[in-house]
Amino acid sequence: MILVNGQSENRIEIVDRGLQYGDGLFETLAYRNGKFEFLEAHLQRLSIDCQRLNIPFVDLDLLRQELTSISTDLTENTVVKVIITRGSGGRGYYADNSLIPTRIISTHPFPNYPESYQTEGVAVRFCEHHLSESTALAGVKHLNRLDQVIARSEWSDQAIAEGLMFDQHGKLIEGTMSNIFLIKSGQLYTPKLVSSGVSGIMRSQIIKLARKNSIPVSELATLVKSDLIESDELFVCNSVNRIWPVKHIIDTKQSFSVGEITKLCQSQVAKALD
Amino acid sequence: MILVNGQSENRIEIVDRGLQYGDGLFETLAYRNGKFEFLEAHLQRLSIDCQRLNIPFVDLDLLRQELTSISTDLTENTVVKVIITRGSGGRGYYADNSLIPTRIISTHPFPNYPESYQTEGVAVRFCEHHLSESTALAGVKHLNRLDQVIARSEWSDQAIAEGLMFDQHGKLIEGTMSNIFLIKSGQLYTPKLVSSGVSGIMRSQIIKLARKNSIPVSELATLVKSDLIESDELFVCNSVNRIWPVKHIIDTKQSFSVGEITKLCQSQVAKALD
Repeated sequence: MILVNGQSENRIEIVDRGLQYGDGLFETLAYRNGKFEFLEAHLQRLSIDCQRLNIPFVDLDLLRQELTSISTDLTENTVVKVIITRGSGGRGYYADNSLIPTRIISTHPFPNYPESYQTEGVAVRFCEHHLSESTALAGVKHLNRLDQVIARSEWSDQAIAEGLMFDQHGKLIEGTMSNIFLIKSGQLYTPKLVSSGVSGIMRSQIIKLARKNSIPVSELATLVKSDLIESDELFVCNSVNRIWPVKHIIDTKQSFSVGEITKLCQSQVAKALD
Repeated sequence: MILVNGQSENRIEIVDRGLQYGDGLFETLAYRNGKFEFLEAHLQRLSIDCQRLNIPFVDLDLLRQELTSISTDLTENTVVKVIITRGSGGRGYYADNSLIPTRIISTHPFPNYPESYQTEGVAVRFCEHHLSESTALAGVKHLNRLDQVIARSEWSDQAIAEGLMFDQHGKLIEGTMSNIFLIKSGQLYTPKLVSSGVSGIMRSQIIKLARKNSIPVSELATLVKSDLIESDELFVCNSVNRIWPVKHIIDTKQSFSVGEITKLCQSQVAKALD
């Protein structure tokens, strides 16, 4: 099911700036057990990202209403993607503020990853493609996603669940579709997104929950491969898959067990969504 | 007029990866005085860029044929944009090689810039937004164009024809829609596109023509603002506007006259296209 500006529709104008320039943003929400998870956090991030790109989309109430409306037809767990583009038109790259943003809501089957990904963990690899660096775009969940596409094309082995990405200087940033946390001596560490990366909703919820539960958590701009190897526990996370412990880094032959802090984070997220 | 995969159509599937991820490339061609300018160079660059992004689009003959076919209906100078996306589908960022690329050809009125832009030159400004850096994407004319959109949104004064862009380290790269050449002591210099920028067709033609005419030309990865200020002549270029001498940099109050090397480049380009 796809809604474009509230109407059932599976196509979009070619002149839409989302296609022409990747001039827009997106959110990927989990609709699980009859509700949208962290809905308000997603809407708030979307609003902040629109401000960062100066896309004049303000009608969060309308979007919330449309999401609620489509959810009445959802009979099972569903991934719901929201795209906001700056709209159609403008002269080349230039767009004045009169453009009306395009609002797209689409529903997708939940990915059928094995349950063991949550309980036993996943194998990950290092991506050869490095993330672009831009302080102005860091953190924003925008539609310029070639880095992720190129990185994700590096492997087809389904036994590898995720690829870890580094910036142009070899600093650890995130997975192709997830953020990453390292655990060392009972403390959580996650890359600080200064010049690359997406500031994921699950990432920010985990930081919030950790602080609430007095688990020390730090964002560091200096993490590199050796920090991964020296970690006690590792996990990747996103809104749909929640927390996947990392059990194995293919490139290093390094293995990890599913540790106590990871399990605590998993249970805290589950509890927050009960 | 828009053709999608050879059919008249003004919309595209929402699931197309061009919209979802900016997963594609484009070319902007000038159809002027009854012919496509530097058509083979555009097709060759498109082919190289497809290889760099691993988009399996190979049918240049078909594209050439479609362009020739639509040109029979063109009665005046026209901008023709070609977009190639990786196609529709895939599982998230992952796309296997079975996807069929989407081919979009659209025609647009020639921009009505004053004739004086060619003869007397243009005013330019420095953009505050800096270009993303990625060695893997540098040079490629891909659909991830948020940097240009953000930079071009910085001004609306129509007296300013172009904005000059710098990378994350303050190195001069290009204009929002053009490449740039500096002239000092009879020599041409243009930024080397190591980690940012688009390798423009007009840029490469100018380099080729300069070498043919024994004008020394160097690509430098070290150009900064002071090099602009210390230049004897400056010009920006692209396939549609050809060569615009820079007569004024707003931010520095610096002025330049339209010099002999600039005029020589203009006449060489015109001659190559006669």
